[in-house]
Amino acid sequence: MSVTAVPGFEAAGIAAGIKPSGNPDLAVVATADRQAVTAAGVFTTNLACAAPVQVSRRHLVDGRAAAVVLNSGNANAATGDQGRADALRMCTLTADGLGVAASDVLVCSTGLIGIPMRMDPIESGVPQAVAALAAGPEAGHRAAVALMTTDTLSKESYAEADLGDGRTIRVGGMAKGAAMLAPSMATMLAVCTTDAVVTPEVLHTALERAVSDSFNALIVDACTSTNDTVLVLANGAAGGPVIDRAGGHAYHALAEALATVCADLAAQMAADAEGATKHVHLTVRGARSAAEARIAARAVAASQLVQCSLYGSDPYWGRVLSELGASGAFLDPEAVEIAYNGITVCRHGIAALHDETALVASMAGRDITIECDLHAGRGSASVRFTDLTHAYVDENMGTS
Amino acid sequence: MSVTAVPGFEAAGIAAGIKPSGNPDLAVVATADRQAVTAAGVFTTNLACAAPVQVSRRHLVDGRAAAVVLNSGNANAATGDQGRADALRMCTLTADGLGVAASDVLVCSTGLIGIPMRMDPIESGVPQAVAALAAGPEAGHRAAVALMTTDTLSKESYAEADLGDGRTIRVGGMAKGAAMLAPSMATMLAVCTTDAVVTPEVLHTALERAVSDSFNALIVDACTSTNDTVLVLANGAAGGPVIDRAGGHAYHALAEALATVCADLAAQMAADAEGATKHVHLTVRGARSAAEARIAARAVAASQLVQCSLYGSDPYWGRVLSELGASGAFLDPEAVEIAYNGITVCRHGIAALHDETALVASMAGRDITIECDLHAGRGSASVRFTDLTHAYVDENMGTS
Repeated sequence: MSVTAVPGFEAAGIAAGIKPSGNPDLAVVATADRQAVTAAGVFTTNLACAAPVQVSRRHLVDGRAAAVVLNSGNANAATGDQGRADALRMCTLTADGLGVAASDVLVCSTGLIGIPMRMDPIESGVPQAVAALAAGPEAGHRAAVALMTTDTLSKESYAEADLGDGRTIRVGGMAKGAAMLAPSMATMLAVCTTDAVVTPEVLHTALERAVSDSFNALIVDACTSTNDTVLVLANGAAGGPVIDRAGGHAYHALAEALATVCADLAAQMAADAEGATKHVHLTVRGARSAAEARIAARAVAASQLVQCSLYGSDPYWGRVLSELGASGAFLDPEAVEIAYNGITVCRHGIAALHDETALVASMAGRDITIECDLHAGRGSASVRFTDLTHAYVDENMGTS
Repeated sequence: MSVTAVPGFEAAGIAAGIKPSGNPDLAVVATADRQAVTAAGVFTTNLACAAPVQVSRRHLVDGRAAAVVLNSGNANAATGDQGRADALRMCTLTADGLGVAASDVLVCSTGLIGIPMRMDPIESGVPQAVAALAAGPEAGHRAAVALMTTDTLSKESYAEADLGDGRTIRVGGMAKGAAMLAPSMATMLAVCTTDAVVTPEVLHTALERAVSDSFNALIVDACTSTNDTVLVLANGAAGGPVIDRAGGHAYHALAEALATVCADLAAQMAADAEGATKHVHLTVRGARSAAEARIAARAVAASQLVQCSLYGSDPYWGRVLSELGASGAFLDPEAVEIAYNGITVCRHGIAALHDETALVASMAGRDITIECDLHAGRGSASVRFTDLTHAYVDENMGTS
């Protein structure tokens, strides 16, 4: 169940020869009737954003798109004017094949930074991918596979929601990104489709909310890549009144379905952290605000020291406390409470008596929860991250 | 040449039994005449600061101190009321031995976080250390050795400066801290001594400047430890007019000597990054301000991905550009220039033609320089850091 799980969308994924391995590396998602529909996107905040991000942002100004073309094997980032021309060319090639305007095509790339695109495989591959466009789960799966870089599995998801008037809306999605292990190529790309009838502004609001609770809560590195992009196309096939404000039952149904798909894709990314031995779910609560909780949670998750201690199955809460204290979020260190796997190891900022044997046993598992309560307010936030392992170092030692 | 290189200061370092290994773990530095002298300190900004930091800050309110007592083997951090009582007890024991007020004694600790101090070794060790106080280089060296945790070498330094009126001032110093390798115990401690005649306020100003260009430019982790402390005691033995403003020849002579000692100690810390295979000196220039240059430099230095690529001797400038772009510092990505070891690999934000063979050859060395020019202003900043290696992961996997 991927982007083609929603009626009215087609997809294709082919091996165009961008990757030296010969693996699939080019995907297209398009509306079945080749009409532009409502679209929205959330992009990296990195100032050094890649050419496809710049082009897609511009093509989304009118809130409409008919297709998305995506490649793996090269990020087309730090490639200057030539990179922008190449990204635009990807749109034009796709548009020509579909019979739509180039400005109605969005583009995403993922791979190494700083290497000019080889355009030969694109020139021959895009027409081939357009010709291969098809409805149904197989086509959606092939598109998801063509996005993979260090991913070991394709990421696909689907959810539906009841609009309360007998109608149902559908959201499908695909993504790439393997949490933490190989963030040197850790661009996070996702494309969602839906049949909701919705304005671009409201679709954007729903997408931002979904991203903030899923992909942006996943890991710290990926949020700052040069290429991170999440797109959604809404073809309105479900019919009914237009969702034109961020409120009401229909809006919440759409927002929830979109959030479910994004959260599922993010969880698949976290699970695909090849080489990671621990999958950590960290919650900071009791911060003065949700924003401060997020800052504190990210500081802990981004800490090499916390990540290393988890690799060693060591519940070294002192380091967690230290990262909380240095994060910039307000706290009274002597109010802080920290629990690993539900076992409180720190209370009032000092060591708490606990069942050592039970703790050691639970730390041996793959899934670890860390809960921190700052007891300073009602703000809370969660992030997912993984441990820092020898395999992580190996994976990121070289670009070749 | 350590803290005792300045006339009028004594030191001692002993094995008190705090460390299970039996290695030296307790040091005292004191004025030879047991009088309180001008003193200043710079401490961690971590909100979860350790008990000795809290006690030393309070004891420095009057800008005077007669001695510093330091232990390795336990950080006395996240230890609450008992921790503060223990830190104060260390001061009282030292003060009793010296015949000074407890409030004239400063205290530093380094080791694991969250473990209550065992006070027996302290109770017996402090009187022993006080009795061992002596002038001369041997005593200074023994004190420096007693601070070591994962350090493989003691860090000691000395500088003098001409006051311009025939008089000379001296600055001695000792420190502990091994850059990056084992920051789970990466507290940075330093104690300096000088014979300058100076007010506490001006001494503090000079110390802050010295710390900002040395220890704070070293690595990112250490800046946020629970225990980081840099202290300086000035006994005025050099005579002459009081340096009572941050300006003029005498002030600059003092500030420069202090900065030289701190920079030398920081360089020794960087060199003692056991397990690191690369020692990196990164400069960001052309930022809108020095503050933004610092933010950008730290973002690059703190990046696991940049650190891993250096371990692989890979000049992956795309990742450096990505970290600069995500750092929060302003930049136009297409103005950025990046050079590894003096070889420009990125110009105008895209790959620059360069001598690949020369670059690969130079990356094989231990010492790497990375220079980034944002071409957005005149702010610049430098940091030193090391690569992320298997040995780093091993060292930080467990606390035992």
